[in-house]
Amino acid sequence: MRKVKIAGTGLIKVKEYWDRSIQDLFAEASLKAIKDASIGDLDKVYVSNMGAALMQDQLNLATILTESLGKPGLSATRIEAGSASGGVAFHEAVQAVASGYSDAVLVTGVEKMSDILPDVVTTGLAMAEDQEYTAYTGVTKTGIAAMIHRLYMDLYASPKEICMMAVKSHEHAVGCKHAQYPFKMSIERAMASPMEADPIHMMECSGIGDGAAALVLVPSDDEGVEVAGTAVSTDYTSIAQRTDPLEMRAIKDAAEKAYKMAGIKASDISLAEVQDDYTINGILGIEGLGLAKTGEGTKMVNNGDVDKDGKTPINTFGGLKARGNPLGATGIYQLAEVALQLQGKAGDHQVEGAKIGVAQNMGGMASICSVNVLRRVGE
Amino acid sequence: MRKVKIAGTGLIKVKEYWDRSIQDLFAEASLKAIKDASIGDLDKVYVSNMGAALMQDQLNLATILTESLGKPGLSATRIEAGSASGGVAFHEAVQAVASGYSDAVLVTGVEKMSDILPDVVTTGLAMAEDQEYTAYTGVTKTGIAAMIHRLYMDLYASPKEICMMAVKSHEHAVGCKHAQYPFKMSIERAMASPMEADPIHMMECSGIGDGAAALVLVPSDDEGVEVAGTAVSTDYTSIAQRTDPLEMRAIKDAAEKAYKMAGIKASDISLAEVQDDYTINGILGIEGLGLAKTGEGTKMVNNGDVDKDGKTPINTFGGLKARGNPLGATGIYQLAEVALQLQGKAGDHQVEGAKIGVAQNMGGMASICSVNVLRRVGE
Repeated sequence: MRKVKIAGTGLIKVKEYWDRSIQDLFAEASLKAIKDASIGDLDKVYVSNMGAALMQDQLNLATILTESLGKPGLSATRIEAGSASGGVAFHEAVQAVASGYSDAVLVTGVEKMSDILPDVVTTGLAMAEDQEYTAYTGVTKTGIAAMIHRLYMDLYASPKEICMMAVKSHEHAVGCKHAQYPFKMSIERAMASPMEADPIHMMECSGIGDGAAALVLVPSDDEGVEVAGTAVSTDYTSIAQRTDPLEMRAIKDAAEKAYKMAGIKASDISLAEVQDDYTINGILGIEGLGLAKTGEGTKMVNNGDVDKDGKTPINTFGGLKARGNPLGATGIYQLAEVALQLQGKAGDHQVEGAKIGVAQNMGGMASICSVNVLRRVGE
Repeated sequence: MRKVKIAGTGLIKVKEYWDRSIQDLFAEASLKAIKDASIGDLDKVYVSNMGAALMQDQLNLATILTESLGKPGLSATRIEAGSASGGVAFHEAVQAVASGYSDAVLVTGVEKMSDILPDVVTTGLAMAEDQEYTAYTGVTKTGIAAMIHRLYMDLYASPKEICMMAVKSHEHAVGCKHAQYPFKMSIERAMASPMEADPIHMMECSGIGDGAAALVLVPSDDEGVEVAGTAVSTDYTSIAQRTDPLEMRAIKDAAEKAYKMAGIKASDISLAEVQDDYTINGILGIEGLGLAKTGEGTKMVNNGDVDKDGKTPINTFGGLKARGNPLGATGIYQLAEVALQLQGKAGDHQVEGAKIGVAQNMGGMASICSVNVLRRVGE
């Protein structure tokens, strides 16, 4: 199989776009990535999106968005895997180039939620759970995270130690031009915010925002940022069916496969992006990636290991909490950020000597997870 | 890139399943295909589905359906491309094996509509058109097909000549165990049925039905049925933006690319499945595949060329009209049927000496189209 590299990245600021359409957001990020890649012709477009069927009443989305690039005749595909859509779409796009079927692929994640009624968004988030066994009970995504959060508190860490995940993400977002909330947040402020679902405070949850992020993939020329490993794995959808509700098997399994493909161990990783849509999810992401032992994720967050100059910097542009979480776009934001780090283009966020970066993106309560490993090659 | 073959097929009857869930339908077809393939382990599942977000309130569908196979840890991806979802998902699944990333892939299409209110289904069908420019006008999918149908009537053929497409599909469905409507239908009956959208009669439209179809793909061992060519292409979504509304550029372009990859001409094709969700679409599918010249598709249908013993048999198990059209599953039904023909397992529907078969599956009014070419090899 051919090796694949990232030739271009395109990001727009995550925010509330009241005056722009989903096509607009898609086109801006996509054209930025195409320009950055300095390529002539694309042959395929992957669109990752979670909720357009519910929020824009739109199916056949890849065709409709691809049309906004003004190039009829392109191949187009839409991937939906709940909030893992971005990482899964990237995995598919890598295969398109690796197989030799495509020579230049655009993969763009896009989501538009701010002009949708909040209860529709909340319903949409719960639609990643099984409608016949879980979602119909009326439980929200936050409600499920709250159960996990409480169990982790009972076994391993204090509320403040878990909450520190959000504080660190905000610290990293300061100065980030594409972040929705590029400001510091104190642990006191977070712990004083209202309960969203006890014991999760509002300021421990990622917010509602619109965004689009794009990457261009081409065959590798042994220079730049290569895809070293890529994997997707699934688990039982309901946490009630799992042997250990705190063991996120889909994360571990995808990480193991992606690391094997890349020929790396967790200790080789220079930096990582984890899915901190809730503080507890960020902690479990760190543990699932093998960066900390079970029950020790909070230690890593609290002792400075995740800082920009720490052992393994995590969420260096703010993560889902502070950069923002436009669902189907999030996985592509993560990968674009890792690519910028490995290209040495991360500006004030730059992690010195970054060589291997990982992005972890999951849907449901880790019922599906993608882990993608990028590596800087050549000089 | 590795060559890919079809190792197993699984079909269930298209009908109204009032007592079964979408998981049930998915699992039955998938397990049939896995059994038929006689393989031990799968490593990836592709799910093609159009409307579950609307009709089952379900996102993250690939994870939830894959769970019903009882094997957590599989990789899973859902593809949505309107009613082209099946053919596009197959195209992706081929890449997974061709790239070397996967050694055994299940691709299952599934759709469940009969327990949904008809206006929701009608709305869902229109959601393949652009919400900002077309769907918001209230036009239905049948309404758009009616405009094309009338233009074709004005230029090339009589209403009866076009209607014959449906008569032929019904003729081919007789005796087909997985067909929803396995009975003959006279041209008189079709022409006497109510107008759905003038000039399209009700009996010229495919119906509402539930179904699931599955294929298992593995690397080729130069025996059996190989994927010779596969392509997906897009066009302007709105027919108003196209130079010639009767030129289905996405069909032509995908056919050209797939034939080139397979090293064939249209005249080499032994049989084809075309998307006759409306009679006019079946005719334009035949022309788009290059099996007849522009304006001469109806001649081919009326002179017997499409019959089982004709020049190029079309829709040999009844097509969308008579086998049934469970949207996201339809493209996989088509490919499974072509595979059965090339394997010599088509029973009473067998086309003698079939060597090369083509399936054409489109979404919207051919705003996206997949063309897949299968070939019998070895002996």
